[in-house]
Amino acid sequence: MNAPYPIEAALRDLAARVEGQLRAAAERQGLAGPPRLAGAFGYALLGGGKRLRPALVLASAQAVGGDASDGSLAMRFAVALEMVHTYSLVHDDLPCMDDDDLRRGRPTVHRAYDEATAVLVGDGLQSAAFAWLLAEPDARAAALARLLADGATRMVEGQALDMAAEGRRLSEPEVHDLMARKTGALLQAAVVGGALAGCGEIRGMDEVGRELGLAFQIADDLLDLTSDAATLGKAAGKDAAAGKATLPSLVGPEEARRRAEALCQSADARLAPLGARADLLRALARYVITRRS
Amino acid sequence: MNAPYPIEAALRDLAARVEGQLRAAAERQGLAGPPRLAGAFGYALLGGGKRLRPALVLASAQAVGGDASDGSLAMRFAVALEMVHTYSLVHDDLPCMDDDDLRRGRPTVHRAYDEATAVLVGDGLQSAAFAWLLAEPDARAAALARLLADGATRMVEGQALDMAAEGRRLSEPEVHDLMARKTGALLQAAVVGGALAGCGEIRGMDEVGRELGLAFQIADDLLDLTSDAATLGKAAGKDAAAGKATLPSLVGPEEARRRAEALCQSADARLAPLGARADLLRALARYVITRRS
Repeated sequence: MNAPYPIEAALRDLAARVEGQLRAAAERQGLAGPPRLAGAFGYALLGGGKRLRPALVLASAQAVGGDASDGSLAMRFAVALEMVHTYSLVHDDLPCMDDDDLRRGRPTVHRAYDEATAVLVGDGLQSAAFAWLLAEPDARAAALARLLADGATRMVEGQALDMAAEGRRLSEPEVHDLMARKTGALLQAAVVGGALAGCGEIRGMDEVGRELGLAFQIADDLLDLTSDAATLGKAAGKDAAAGKATLPSLVGPEEARRRAEALCQSADARLAPLGARADLLRALARYVITRRS
Repeated sequence: MNAPYPIEAALRDLAARVEGQLRAAAERQGLAGPPRLAGAFGYALLGGGKRLRPALVLASAQAVGGDASDGSLAMRFAVALEMVHTYSLVHDDLPCMDDDDLRRGRPTVHRAYDEATAVLVGDGLQSAAFAWLLAEPDARAAALARLLADGATRMVEGQALDMAAEGRRLSEPEVHDLMARKTGALLQAAVVGGALAGCGEIRGMDEVGRELGLAFQIADDLLDLTSDAATLGKAAGKDAAAGKATLPSLVGPEEARRRAEALCQSADARLAPLGARADLLRALARYVITRRS
């Protein structure tokens, strides 16, 4: 890539396309029953966001020469994956989990509605994701649903590992395992699923997805560190980081940054044989570790 | 059927077979991550119970002449369906939902463990169900997963309808809609899925499943009425029933019992052409409305 890829603009375009498809999914596959439930479903799903996971699916499908248009299986998988990601946010925000009042600048679902509705919307988002993905229940959709189910299960395991880690210092392999499950599993599923939807084969995208998932989480933890330091003063930020099960807290921010860069370069090298078709995916990999939010 | 079908013994045998398969699923598809999560997963899934839904799947597969052995697709679907049913119980018991301390005579998951673990175990049970069902991701497994996803979505809608009904009197169509979603959807999916797994076609089992699902819920509400009356005195039982969105509270217990009987007879008539192969399913339909617990 010689000229810088206009990744911010590309991401905005992708997010707009995904938003349209999420809206269609909410209309056709959303929850019936009481209006309050349907309202909360739309509130959770159409609340904006960068839509990074669906963008990765589409970029991966494009990288293997597959169809990434609005009517493609890749887009269907992208929407299903974002529904699963959204369910996890709704449940993670619950009082018994992270107890968050705000998500993307708006009240969380259990704040805007109530706890029971938030539990049900999360549950319904997960089943609606599988129903949406399996609209044409053929073998390829089945393979994608299997991939999504495995990613979702590993994500739950990662969340539990994170809870169990509170107050104790993890070893580096433990932190890697936590990252690989908590956010890594779904990001990896995005990259692998894009290839699977695009050309029916995984084509070595599992390694690319794994590296990208880890790089994303390291970058995320570094961003948290920066914002903690800005909010609390640098020393307090360091203290806060030291208590968390993150790679920056374990090896220090500089070394963590080097590792994220190395992961990104490795993914880049793996994508080299795919040529220009992989430009978007390469640019997303770079964006993942350079983004400011 | 001339001689009475030994349904209690048959159900015990089926439940034991299902229990063995659930154990295998928990071992191979259970949650990794912290031991606490895996423990809670097994606690929730292997807590006993009649295993009525898996029994319906296997009986339905048998009724259409399909394979209902331990290694069959019908058994795989039966286990997946029970995992979805179990997730719904774990989440329904949460403090923000029904706030129950006991389930099948043991502390509920959030009591035996904690709320966050109960949320995660429920979430993980749902994704593990799809992963288990899609072990061989072919078109038939995809169709079954689609059926399961739709049933699970309708179940969530039913739960929300039930919550929304609190304190107001529903019309008869509203009560029917509630019953059809809340418990009916998964029971119908059991009967339809058994046929689909058994012979690749639905074979009119959707109507049998619908009738059986409604009959089950009416019988359940009648059982609640009896136990309320026994506990609180007959008048109090009637009062309690009047406040609930159930068919017995709307049309009275005698009329409700007649309707359940009529639904059961209708299902029976639909099964007549299948002959002796459908004996187990017919006996289960009868058991659904005559059981004492």
